[in-house]
Order: sequence, then structure tokens, then C-alpha cells
Amino acid sequence: MEALVIHAAGDLRVEDLPTPELGAGQIAVRVRCGGICGSDLHYYQHGGFGTIRVKEPMVLGHEVAGVITALGAGTTGFAAGERVAISPSRPCGACRFCQMGLQNHCLDMRYYGSAMRTPHVQGAFRQEIVIEPHQAHKLADHVSDAEGAMAEPLSVALHAVNRAGPLLGKRVLVTGCGPIGAMLVIAARRAGATQIVATDISAFTLRKALAVGADEAVDVAAAPDALARFTADKGHFDVLFEASGNERALRGALDALRPRGVLVQVGLGGEMTLPLNTIVAKEFDLRGAFRFHEEFATAVALLNGRLVDLKPLVSATLPYRDAGRAFALAADRTQAMKVILSFD
Amino acid sequence: MEALVIHAAGDLRVEDLPTPELGAGQIAVRVRCGGICGSDLHYYQHGGFGTIRVKEPMVLGHEVAGVITALGAGTTGFAAGERVAISPSRPCGACRFCQMGLQNHCLDMRYYGSAMRTPHVQGAFRQEIVIEPHQAHKLADHVSDAEGAMAEPLSVALHAVNRAGPLLGKRVLVTGCGPIGAMLVIAARRAGATQIVATDISAFTLRKALAVGADEAVDVAAAPDALARFTADKGHFDVLFEASGNERALRGALDALRPRGVLVQVGLGGEMTLPLNTIVAKEFDLRGAFRFHEEFATAVALLNGRLVDLKPLVSATLPYRDAGRAFALAADRTQAMKVILSFD
Amino acid sequence: MEALVIHAAGDLRVEDLPTPELGAGQIAVRVRCGGICGSDLHYYQHGGFGTIRVKEPMVLGHEVAGVITALGAGTTGFAAGERVAISPSRPCGACRFCQMGLQNHCLDMRYYGSAMRTPHVQGAFRQEIVIEPHQAHKLADHVSDAEGAMAEPLSVALHAVNRAGPLLGKRVLVTGCGPIGAMLVIAARRAGATQIVATDISAFTLRKALAVGADEAVDVAAAPDALARFTADKGHFDVLFEASGNERALRGALDALRPRGVLVQVGLGGEMTLPLNTIVAKEFDLRGAFRFHEEFATAVALLNGRLVDLKPLVSATLPYRDAGRAFALAADRTQAMKVILSFD
Amino acid sequence: MEALVIHAAGDLRVEDLPTPELGAGQIAVRVRCGGICGSDLHYYQHGGFGTIRVKEPMVLGHEVAGVITALGAGTTGFAAGERVAISPSRPCGACRFCQMGLQNHCLDMRYYGSAMRTPHVQGAFRQEIVIEPHQAHKLADHVSDAEGAMAEPLSVALHAVNRAGPLLGKRVLVTGCGPIGAMLVIAARRAGATQIVATDISAFTLRKALAVGADEAVDVAAAPDALARFTADKGHFDVLFEASGNERALRGALDALRPRGVLVQVGLGGEMTLPLNTIVAKEFDLRGAFRFHEEFATAVALLNGRLVDLKPLVSATLPYRDAGRAFALAADRTQAMKVILSFD
Repeated sequence: MEALVIHAAGDLRVEDLPTPELGAGQIAVRVRCGGICGSDLHYYQHGGFGTIRVKEPMVLGHEVAGVITALGAGTTGFAAGERVAISPSRPCGACRFCQMGLQNHCLDMRYYGSAMRTPHVQGAFRQEIVIEPHQAHKLADHVSDAEGAMAEPLSVALHAVNRAGPLLGKRVLVTGCGPIGAMLVIAARRAGATQIVATDISAFTLRKALAVGADEAVDVAAAPDALARFTADKGHFDVLFEASGNERALRGALDALRPRGVLVQVGLGGEMTLPLNTIVAKEFDLRGAFRFHEEFATAVALLNGRLVDLKPLVSATLPYRDAGRAFALAADRTQAMKVILSFD
Repeated sequence: MEALVIHAAGDLRVEDLPTPELGAGQIAVRVRCGGICGSDLHYYQHGGFGTIRVKEPMVLGHEVAGVITALGAGTTGFAAGERVAISPSRPCGACRFCQMGLQNHCLDMRYYGSAMRTPHVQGAFRQEIVIEPHQAHKLADHVSDAEGAMAEPLSVALHAVNRAGPLLGKRVLVTGCGPIGAMLVIAARRAGATQIVATDISAFTLRKALAVGADEAVDVAAAPDALARFTADKGHFDVLFEASGNERALRGALDALRPRGVLVQVGLGGEMTLPLNTIVAKEFDLRGAFRFHEEFATAVALLNGRLVDLKPLVSATLPYRDAGRAFALAADRTQAMKVILSFD
Repeated sequence: MEALVIHAAGDLRVEDLPTPELGAGQIAVRVRCGGICGSDLHYYQHGGFGTIRVKEPMVLGHEVAGVITALGAGTTGFAAGERVAISPSRPCGACRFCQMGLQNHCLDMRYYGSAMRTPHVQGAFRQEIVIEPHQAHKLADHVSDAEGAMAEPLSVALHAVNRAGPLLGKRVLVTGCGPIGAMLVIAARRAGATQIVATDISAFTLRKALAVGADEAVDVAAAPDALARFTADKGHFDVLFEASGNERALRGALDALRPRGVLVQVGLGGEMTLPLNTIVAKEFDLRGAFRFHEEFATAVALLNGRLVDLKPLVSATLPYRDAGRAFALAADRTQAMKVILSFD
Repeated sequence: MEALVIHAAGDLRVEDLPTPELGAGQIAVRVRCGGICGSDLHYYQHGGFGTIRVKEPMVLGHEVAGVITALGAGTTGFAAGERVAISPSRPCGACRFCQMGLQNHCLDMRYYGSAMRTPHVQGAFRQEIVIEPHQAHKLADHVSDAEGAMAEPLSVALHAVNRAGPLLGKRVLVTGCGPIGAMLVIAARRAGATQIVATDISAFTLRKALAVGADEAVDVAAAPDALARFTADKGHFDVLFEASGNERALRGALDALRPRGVLVQVGLGGEMTLPLNTIVAKEFDLRGAFRFHEEFATAVALLNGRLVDLKPLVSATLPYRDAGRAFALAADRTQAMKVILSFD
């Protein structure tokens, strides 16, 4: 069985690994599609991000879907041949935070393809994988493998929307229109936002934001002052989803956000200098959003029910043996949103 | 100018009334469409409901849309010829509840066509009406007058959804599929519910619930035990919208609602005998939902943005001079959802 | 080792049982005090309540505190000689509701001294008990064993307060001033309520409500209309805690509760006939409150920090061999709040 | 009538002003006590803060209490001789935010003694003042004028506590123990916090924090690493109130705050550089808290009900003619918490 293994920045190899053993109560899956995420790109381009570094060979990948090939002894509720999206989130279930229902803050999380702990948690860009039943979410026939693989980033967007509180009737600003930003547009619309304005500095991603339902797409590189018309009476928007991780994007949106507005920070961006007095005086709620938990089931339910459409976000599907080309394409914001690796 | 005036149960007259005077800051509207509501029906059939009785002649109606004919001195932001949905909600803005943002509980509410106070508040089933700017919500060209008139019941449904909290990813049960129940299906879907099951005892209304997006419609007259399959593990649904006002409907749904489930009671139903121990032991939240306030703007924004479709709910449009026939049709649950009066 | 075993209504025996075996990771406790709860009384007087009946001999009791006598292999964080309050709540930790953080709705709960499942879960009115570390909460030296035993009913009251949302600055009505009602007064005050009015039909319990901090105690038997002065402008109170389980108490309070008021139902009371239209039109939130989970730690922290005082609620302490007399006293609302059994 | 008028930094004068005229529906009050606030100090020391500068002579002061001397025509509910705390908050009641119940974000706020708008809003450090009835809150006999004057800063603390959500059973960290920080300790305790740790760099203010109920006071100047023992398992505290406006204080507390912890920023502090990735990964809620609205009534109710004790915070009471000395003392964090001006 082959897998995509990162050894260091720029050193991504197709390697032959032993086929994993199927234990009692588990499920064996042949992976068909895997989506390349921004964190995969960071490992590939920079060997990590912040203090998180690749210190040993690690299989990349955490956005995958495939077909069940075998069931371990005693596994019920599934059958060989069924197609499933696979949640990469594996909380312990027992720690303080799991018992509070905050599984994404598990003290012993083993999230696929992550170097946050050592030994690293091996990822899912591999031909065969063995999973637990709670990770497997069945896909309807009309949902493609690529869409199934995108249940993971959609879950991230849904979690951010859940962090924002109810959006029905709300005016929403999304800053940063990469794959997560675009899925935030989709998720905010699905949750009932009546106005969605998206900003970015790439014409390509802004077109995609419109394609998936934004009411307006604003190029803040071309027109840095473009949000000024939303600043009257202390601000127009109820909710801001910040998905760029860029300090200027966040600062530039504050005047357009009304008092008591909610600002969900999704993009990672290191140190940022913020006008705390504005946050105090307008009583913003700045809420971090990190990964997801129950939202994975919601993502698959929305896909199965044709309640969201992620197809416009698939920019290309390439064989996993062309990983170098696929990663280069995924890094190009002028022509790619989500790039899918095929493992067939 | 003519209007529909209720004098007593069964005594609804077309009467000639003086054209209202247009004051400074106000807007004159020629009413085009008006929807018949369940409360209009109650006034017509029974002369009121509960302790609320028609004690003097009262113009009926509170679901209307029309076209602006003139602006009072100093009125800005509107122009003659613009089409508007009219909010019938006129809170005082100054009382304790208005200042808490709970305008639907205003101590001095003057809601159109209501006998809750005496003198009664005259309604909007009339050819000409003068309104305040905050009542006027502009309709996009593609939204018909009939749809505009339905902004009001849609607001009721949106308010009930807001009372329920976030619905993204939630499993929702709607009991009672009259116009409000059907709009609850629409609103819950718009707010992101992933599963919506509707129940009623009329095949006609159940078909309508499916037409507007329910995943499943259950005839509880034909199969009283139809919800039993949703009762495993303490209950399947996260949220129940009770729109029938029927005690059996409410009681029958409790076993299908999970612990900490939210039960929004929309339908009026007088005295009901409830198993309080079940509400305690499963820690339900039983929340009343009554009218609306800011949801009217949301309703019109959703219509203007093609984010909801109310057209399947218009059963017939009849001239206001045929009010008797229109009211009879509106009362017939085997063939009518929303019946619209035309005032042109 | 002796224990109090209920066989049927009126048939409560002191029996000799085998001393429980101490397993690895567990804690052996010599029980010192146990509080008699309303449910213990129901088993004793009626053999159960509703559909829950004693079908086999069951040790009663779930409000106990004692001293650690031995630690199982590998148990850390505790030492012999330490005094602890014991939480009777033993959720599975693994089911759907435990993983949502709703452990009080566990699908496999084993709550001490409960006939809700068969075999019944044996209780804690016994001289020796073996518990899990998560059940043990250390008591400060200044907290008596009797107060430690009352951590359990205090947890029930704290949970009800948590169900109500923030109480800081709120006006609170408590109907029913038995032990739980009195502890609701204490908990609501601790949470910042600025006005607390308590009602009951017993002069004795009303005096106790005043003793623990109620601003006013109203005898609704003597003056059925006593709440009328709180009904102006749609109602005075923000929150109602209904701890009597009596339909008249609940109905009588509705006019005194403001629109959007929260009504936490704590008392069990079977079928109740309620004016649903009032709940709808005033948009009440009627919320059940059942048992507790994390509140047990809070209860002990409040006791240890001298932030609540339960001592006024101890009416008597009797040896467990006088159980008959103790239960008779506990049932007498003219002279008893909490009756404590001593197991020394 | 005399008043304290700021002309520029360091230029605070006692001036003779015309006695204000009493209009219909209003209340005339002889001011007895006024508390010096940090913003008063900023005007005095620096002529303002940030972009807010004194551009014309302005009466300072917004924390005052006094005695009613006369009632305007038609004013009811008050009587001459009654002592009142005066809310300095005068929202318009009509704007978008007032109608949402967010009066502290009023688009036309006229807050006493503020240079945020020009002409500046004149303040309350004056012998006579005319107010609206909604500003007047009666003081119980046992509440001193100085305590009455402190209802305003207490309201600020209560509002911050309300922004945090329920505190019953919560572990709370307060960074910065000036008057607001100390009142946050009082308010958090009143709201049910079970553990309160306070930090500062002044031994004097830390002693005061202990005097008003903090469980522990930590000198982070003496021991910069003092919070390290609270960082295990992703952090100990549920809620942080940041009242110093100091970047290091905020950053230093993040590791001690648990995932999903709430961070209420009360202190103003200009630009701060924050580790956004930590806010994202631990999903903090960073909420601004600014002034108050309904909390003023709560503050007075708590004082009247002996539910809080502010007396330990009064460092000195000086005649208003000694304003220079009073302001110098108020600025000295080694010996002063709240300094009160007497206007008698």
C-alpha cells in the first residue's frame, strides 16, 4: 500500500507502507479521494507552522473519502461496498473536555496528519486505512468521492458558523475567500444569512465566492477603502468571519461591524496588533473557531440532502503520484481552490 | 374607499370608509393584496377567541402589501410607485419591553385588526391605508403582491425559529401543517435544519408540507403511532415546532424529542393537560412564540433574495368583494392553505 | 455492615449486608450522615411514584457524606481519614448524552437508590460504601458531615439555577419552600438575584425560607391573591422556580411573571392542566430541571468557601436505627425541613 | 452654584455656573458626593485619551449621588428629601441600538462629563443638577452618599459580569485591581464565582482585592511566572476579567484560561499585540465590555439589599474645592482606590 509521506519541507515522497491491520469493531476503507488543505501545504512548503514542525516522517492528509472493503469482528451498521467520508477527528472521549462536549479540545486528540504531538499522528493520504465506526459517515449515491473528501473543510466552516450563533436574517462579512472562506459563504447562506459580502485580494477566489452564493465580492487590493460604505451608524454587519489570517483584513473590517457584532476568527495568523479600545467600546465578541466535532455529521447530512453544493470549489483532481504538481497547484491562489488527490 | 368590516360572528361587510388622511412623515399606500389569517377566520366564524371578542365594528386584516401612492411632508427613503409589504406591528417604542428590544410585548401595541384592546385597532383589509415608514418594506420586482402579503405569516414562522435557537444541523419536527406550519418548514430549512418531519391529519396540508421542503410528512390520523420509530434512546428530534394548538399533537411528540430538546409552541390552543414529569425529567425547553418584530425585515429580505419560495402556499386569489367565499375557502383544510384577497 | 432496605411501602428494614469489596482505583468510605429526600419518602410511603415502583429489596438513600477508610490499588489524590461528600450520580461517560455533556440524561445512569431500572440501583444509606474517585468531593474542616450530605440537594438547586440562566440583578419567585425550595432561595441569592419572594402553604417552611435569605415569604393558603400586586405591566418577576409540583402554584404565578420570563420546573407533579395561550402570548420559557452533574463540585466548593449556609435547614439528626421515626418527621411539613440520619 | 471645570490638561477650575433650570417632569438634585474615575484623571492629567480631547471647558464627573430638592411639574414617584444615586447614562431611546436594548451603544448618547462629542456633554461635579426620573435611583437609609456615588463604577463591573455569562460555580481571574478590578471581584463573587484570583503589580491594590473577597491576590511584578501553576491541562480558569488595559497582563493570562474560556476586556489599552493563533486554537471568547445600562438599577438594588459592600474601597473623602489634592491622591495607586469629592 502506498502513502504520501512528508519528511521535511519540500520532501514529500510516495512510499510503500504495510497495509494496516483490521481489528475487532473497526472498518477497513480503500481511500479514493483526498483534499489538500492549507496545513498540508504548510508542512510541504515550510515543514510546519509556528512551533509545530515535522520532526519525523509523517503521512499527510486529513480530508478523505473512500469505500469500505472489510469490517472487523463485531462491527455493525456498515457493509462492504458502502462509500464513506472519514472524520479525521479522534478525541479520547474521556478527558475533561470530551466530557464537557468540547471534543475538539480533547487533551489526547489524535487528529490525522498532525505534527502537534510527537510521535506525530499519521495521516490519511494513503490507499488503505482502518478507522473506527464513529469516523465513518455514509455518502448518498449522488455525492461524489471528491465532495465526500470536502466534508472535512465544510465541517470547519460549519463549526465557525455554530460559533457565531444564529445567522437567520443576519448580515455577514467574510474576509478571505480561499476554500474555507468560500465554504463559510456556503455555510452562512445555508444557516439563513440574508446578506453575505466577501473580500479577498485575488480576483479568482472572489469569482468563486460569487459562484457559491456571496451577494457581493469586494477586491480590497484594488479598492482598500471598499468597506467604507458599510461603516455608517457604527457599522452594517452583524457577523464577521475572518478567514484570511491577515491583520489588515481583520482591522479593515472592524468599522463595518456593528456594536455587539460577532467576529469569528478562523484563519490562523500568528501575532496581530489590534485596537483593543475598539473591541471594548463596540463590545465585539471575538471568538476563535478551531476544527469541529459534531459538525462532520452535519456536513455529510447537508451533502446527502443536496442542501449545499461544493462542486464549484473543486479546481482539479490529480493522481496521488503527481503530488508535487497537485501541491503546487493548490498553492496558487490565482487558479485553484480545492485540489483533490485521487488514490484509485 | 372600501374596507372589510366585521360586526359580529358571520357578519362581515364591505363598507365605505373615509380615505385616511396623510400626515407629515407618513406614507399612503394603495393596498393590493391581503392574506386571510387564522385569527381573521376566528373573528369571522366565532366573533373572537377566548376572552377576546369583537365588541364594535372592526376592519379585519393584518397581512397586506400594496403600492405607495403619496408621501407625507418630509418623508424620505421612499417614492410613489414603489411596492411594499406592510408590517402590522406598531409598538410604542418607549415602554419597558420596547426598551428591552421585546417590541412584540409592548405595553401599548396597536396591531392591525385586533380586538385585544378597546377601542379595537382597525385593520388593513382596505383599499387605502396610511402607514409609518418603519412599517414599509420594499419588495423586489420579482416578488408578487401576494408573496409580499405573506411576509407577515412568514415573520411569525421566522420568529418561532429564532425562539428555537440555531437550527443548523438540527433534526426538526413540525406538528400542524397549516400556513404557519408550512412556513415553519420553509424557515427551518432556510435556517439549516438537516431533517424536517411534518405531521398533520389532513392529506392536503401534508402534501403542501412536502412541496415546500419537508423531508417526510406523516399523517397522524391514519397512523397514530407513526412517531414511535423516533423514540429510541430517549428521542430523535432536537426541536419541535407545535403549530396545531392541539393537545394530542403536543403530547404525541414528546417521546420523539430528545432530552434538552426545544419545544416551540406557536399554535394557540387554550387549556392543555401536559405530563409535567416528562418535561422535568427530559429537561425540555417549552417556549412560547408570539408574533414577531425584527423578523418582518428578514422575511422581506428572504423573499427579495429568492432565499425562500412561498408561491406553493397560495391556494387562491379572490376579489375582496367575494370575502364570504374567500373566508369559506380559507377555512377548508382539505383544499386551502393561504387565500389571498385582491383589493385592486 | 448494616443498611436501610426498602421492601415495599411502609416496609423499611435495617439489614445486615456484606461489606462491599474495594477494587483497584476505588475508594472505601464509612458513611456518617445521610439526608432523607422526597423520593426516599415516596418509596417509603407509597412504594414509588408514578410508574416507578419498588419491585425488589433496595437500599435507599443518595444524599450522603463520610470518611475515607481505604484506597484501592492505584487510587491517587485521596487519603484515608479525609472526609468527603459523595455524588450519587454515576453516568456511563460514553453514551450520546454523556458525550454531549448532558450526563444527567445518560442512557445508562446508575443513580443511587433508584427503582427507575431493574435490577434497581442500590443506595447509600449504609455503613460502608465503595465509590469511584469522581464521586468523592473533599469537605473542608468547617463543613459538618450533615452539611456534606446536603451537597446533593444543593446540587439539584444549583442545577435548576443554571437552567435559568444568569440571575445577577434578577427578580425571582420561588413557589414551594421545602428543602429544595429553600435551597433554591440560597442558590438564587448566591447567583445574584436582587429580589427573592417565596410562597408556600406552610408557615413553618415559609419561616425557613426567610431564615435562609428570602426577601419576602408569602402564605398563599392564607391569602390566595397575594401575588396580585406583582401583576402590573404584564408581570414583575424575571424568573420563577416552581418547586411544589402543584398545578395551582404554577398557574397562580403566571400573571406575576413578565413576558419572556423563565419558569424552571423542579417539582415533580404528574399531569397538569396549563393555559398554553398564556405561555404562547407571554413567550415564557418553561424549562425542566432534573438532577445535576457538574453542580455537585460547585455545591461542595460553595460549602467549603463559606459561600452558602445550609445549617438552618437541618431539622434533626437521628440514628439510622430510628429510621421509622426519622421518616415520619421528614414527612411532617409543619416541623421538618431536612432530616439527617446518622450512621456512626 | 459651583462646578469643577476642566479647561485643558492640568487646568481644573472651581467655577461659578448658573443653577440649572428645572423643567416639567424633571428632578432637581443637590449633589453630595462624586467619585473620581480613571477617565476624569485622564482629562485632568493628559487633556483626554486617544483621539478624545478636551476642546472646550467641560464640567467633569459622572459618579454622583445627592438629595432631591425639587420636582418639576408632573414628576411622580419621587419626593424632595429623598437621596438618590444618579445614572450618568442618557441614551436617546429611539435609535437602532436603543430599540435593540443596547442603550450603551446609543447613536446619540449624552453621557455626563464626556468629550467624545462636541459640544462636550457637561458633567456632574457640580452642586446642583437637574436630571430625568429614569436617572434617579433611591438609596436606602443605610447606604452612604459615597456608596451611592459608587453605584456607577459598580454598574461597569456588573455589566462586565453580565457580558461574561453565568458565573455560578466558575473559576475567575481578574487582572488589574484598581477600583474597577476590585468591583469585579465583588460582582463576580456576588454572581456565584467559587474561586477568584486577582493580579496586579501594586501591593496596595492587591490588599484591597483580598479585603473585598478575592480568594488569592498575586503580585505579577514580584513573581512574573505566578500564574504558571494554573496552566496544566490547557488552563484552569473559566473566565478572565482584564481590567488593567495592559498587554502583558492579558497575554500572561491566556495560558491559565481553559479552552472556550471567556475573556472580558474592561480596561482600555490602545493597540495590543495578541497571539491570534492561541485565541483560535483555544477558541476563546474575547468580549469587550463598555459602560452599562440596566446594571445601574441592579447596582443600587445590591447596595440597598446589603448584597455588596463597597465601603472598603473608599480611600478618602475630600471637599470639591480641594480637587487638585483629590485628583493627585486618586492617581496614586500605592495608597488610593476610590477618592470621593464632597459637594456639601
